[in-house]
Amino acid sequence: MSIFDVAVWKDGRVRMMDQRALPHEEIYLTFSSAQEVAGAIRAMVVRGAPAIGCAAAFGMAVEAFRLAANGPPDNWPAAMAPGMAALRDSRPTAINLVWALERLRPLLEGGEPDRVPDRLLCEAEAIRQEDIESCRSMGQFGADFLPMTADRTIALLTHCNAGALATAGYGTALGVIRAATHRFEQVRVYASETRPYLQGARLTAWELLKDGIDTTLITDGMAGHLMSRGMVQAVVVGADRVAANGDAANKIGTYPLSVLAHRHQIPFLVACPLSTIDLATATGADIPIEERPAEEVTHCLGRRTAAQGVKVFNPAFDVTPAALISALVTEKGVVTAPDREKIAHLFDMP
Amino acid sequence: MSIFDVAVWKDGRVRMMDQRALPHEEIYLTFSSAQEVAGAIRAMVVRGAPAIGCAAAFGMAVEAFRLAANGPPDNWPAAMAPGMAALRDSRPTAINLVWALERLRPLLEGGEPDRVPDRLLCEAEAIRQEDIESCRSMGQFGADFLPMTADRTIALLTHCNAGALATAGYGTALGVIRAATHRFEQVRVYASETRPYLQGARLTAWELLKDGIDTTLITDGMAGHLMSRGMVQAVVVGADRVAANGDAANKIGTYPLSVLAHRHQIPFLVACPLSTIDLATATGADIPIEERPAEEVTHCLGRRTAAQGVKVFNPAFDVTPAALISALVTEKGVVTAPDREKIAHLFDMP
Repeated sequence: MSIFDVAVWKDGRVRMMDQRALPHEEIYLTFSSAQEVAGAIRAMVVRGAPAIGCAAAFGMAVEAFRLAANGPPDNWPAAMAPGMAALRDSRPTAINLVWALERLRPLLEGGEPDRVPDRLLCEAEAIRQEDIESCRSMGQFGADFLPMTADRTIALLTHCNAGALATAGYGTALGVIRAATHRFEQVRVYASETRPYLQGARLTAWELLKDGIDTTLITDGMAGHLMSRGMVQAVVVGADRVAANGDAANKIGTYPLSVLAHRHQIPFLVACPLSTIDLATATGADIPIEERPAEEVTHCLGRRTAAQGVKVFNPAFDVTPAALISALVTEKGVVTAPDREKIAHLFDMP
Repeated sequence: MSIFDVAVWKDGRVRMMDQRALPHEEIYLTFSSAQEVAGAIRAMVVRGAPAIGCAAAFGMAVEAFRLAANGPPDNWPAAMAPGMAALRDSRPTAINLVWALERLRPLLEGGEPDRVPDRLLCEAEAIRQEDIESCRSMGQFGADFLPMTADRTIALLTHCNAGALATAGYGTALGVIRAATHRFEQVRVYASETRPYLQGARLTAWELLKDGIDTTLITDGMAGHLMSRGMVQAVVVGADRVAANGDAANKIGTYPLSVLAHRHQIPFLVACPLSTIDLATATGADIPIEERPAEEVTHCLGRRTAAQGVKVFNPAFDVTPAALISALVTEKGVVTAPDREKIAHLFDMP
């Protein structure tokens, strides 16, 4: 599998591929403070819930090294508070951001104060390694769940980019697709372009083609036609936050796919690590939905598409109710027809 | 209402607004033969089923004048055959094209041969005038059908452009919306941008804003989110061909809207003149679906969006089954829950 440095530690700084330049250029940027990393998350240099979690963790580490450059601060939690707040507020929907920060927070207190930067960095590295392993597990569980066909071929539809680029590596939904290529003789992927930000066209097509996976691009409105013609055997997407009852927020346009899949009796899989499941969010109605700038909709790659003066509504995510999710694919296994009890049980598993 | 020359007769030639240049420029082009008009239809200078019908009719007229320039041909049907074939083959899905040609065909025979060009022109003008009147009727019928709300406000979702630009004037779906502004105190329109060709962003937003109608642009994937939040009270779209059983082909992305509207119990209206209904097409499965060039999907306004090497599937239309259509709005009235019998009855009405 191709490896891209989505969010890594290098030479004492955070290094991230600038995903805004894809698929045309592979540019890497480096960041030296939490504020800089937060800015990169806001600007979508890095995106995808697990990747944002990793980026935030490394953002904490780099902030700690920066603060400790002239000796460790007297009060680590107070010194780190502004950077943590900037990271936490950089995107509202993906819960992995908060999850990563909360995982690192206890390391700010206790122990030797001058060891805080190293402790944060070790934990950030652990988050990154665990994310890659989680994706591999999810991939296998998800691929095994897919319905085997008589001719051992399958066509999968995915939306946005829940790939290597959205995680520390391998991907959630695209991890399932990658693993499926080992189980099926032929895997064909339909990638919806995912307006307004074109993650499907720019990122998913790019990373799947790098791995030699048969990928066909469609616009977001075409999924219904494909399903009505029997051209898709399963839908596999990622998630930005899953509520305690199994409702899943994911990139805008996901919910319509779940409704269509339900109508056409096509399995609808949501692949995400447990770090994306937020037991403190009761239902999908409680998930904050980020609204992004109008220019994303009135323009495409910087060129104005829309008539001047038109208003814009630009929600970045929608919520798929648990009832429309055939299976939630996690690193601990597949939860079919997810509900509150089954999800709570996931967290009790070893 | 603003008037644009979508397809008109001017100074012995066919004049059409070049809709490819909208919303940035208002350019008019003129055409002197059936082949030229067919080329303009293929190239999407003009689009929208009723507008294509008008354009084809004027294309026939201009071809006849061209052929008669040095005296009328001996055999009008034979002389016109190549031009008619070019027009007929210019787009496969919209049936109004065939309908207009078949309406003009009988005028090629009988009567004085040197009067053929004038007869074709008169009939083309009649088609154009009738289309405008049909749109006005449809608008009124459709607006009256919309559910009145307690505060006399309504939010309508439309897709692609079924407007003045898609007809001889006033529009089918947008005709309903225009008429609704007289019945409701406030009408808010959500226009989906309609990738890949952006008819919603470029054309619908442009013509609705010209009329001062409150218009908000969304991407195609956002409709589900709007409906789940109760932000839309009805969906109104046009059609390119309606089969005898009520199945309706319309711009790709329409079918998902009908599935979503059904789930959310929102009325789903298809507005089209009888010339769009083809009794010779039994069901939606018999409607040919045009596939258009890959570049429409891999690019946006000429800029490449997609990773190099990706395959593309680009069907221009999808089919909404009659069962998901709350009402078919025609110039003869509204047919609720359309089926074969009700549609056949429409053609028997005076």
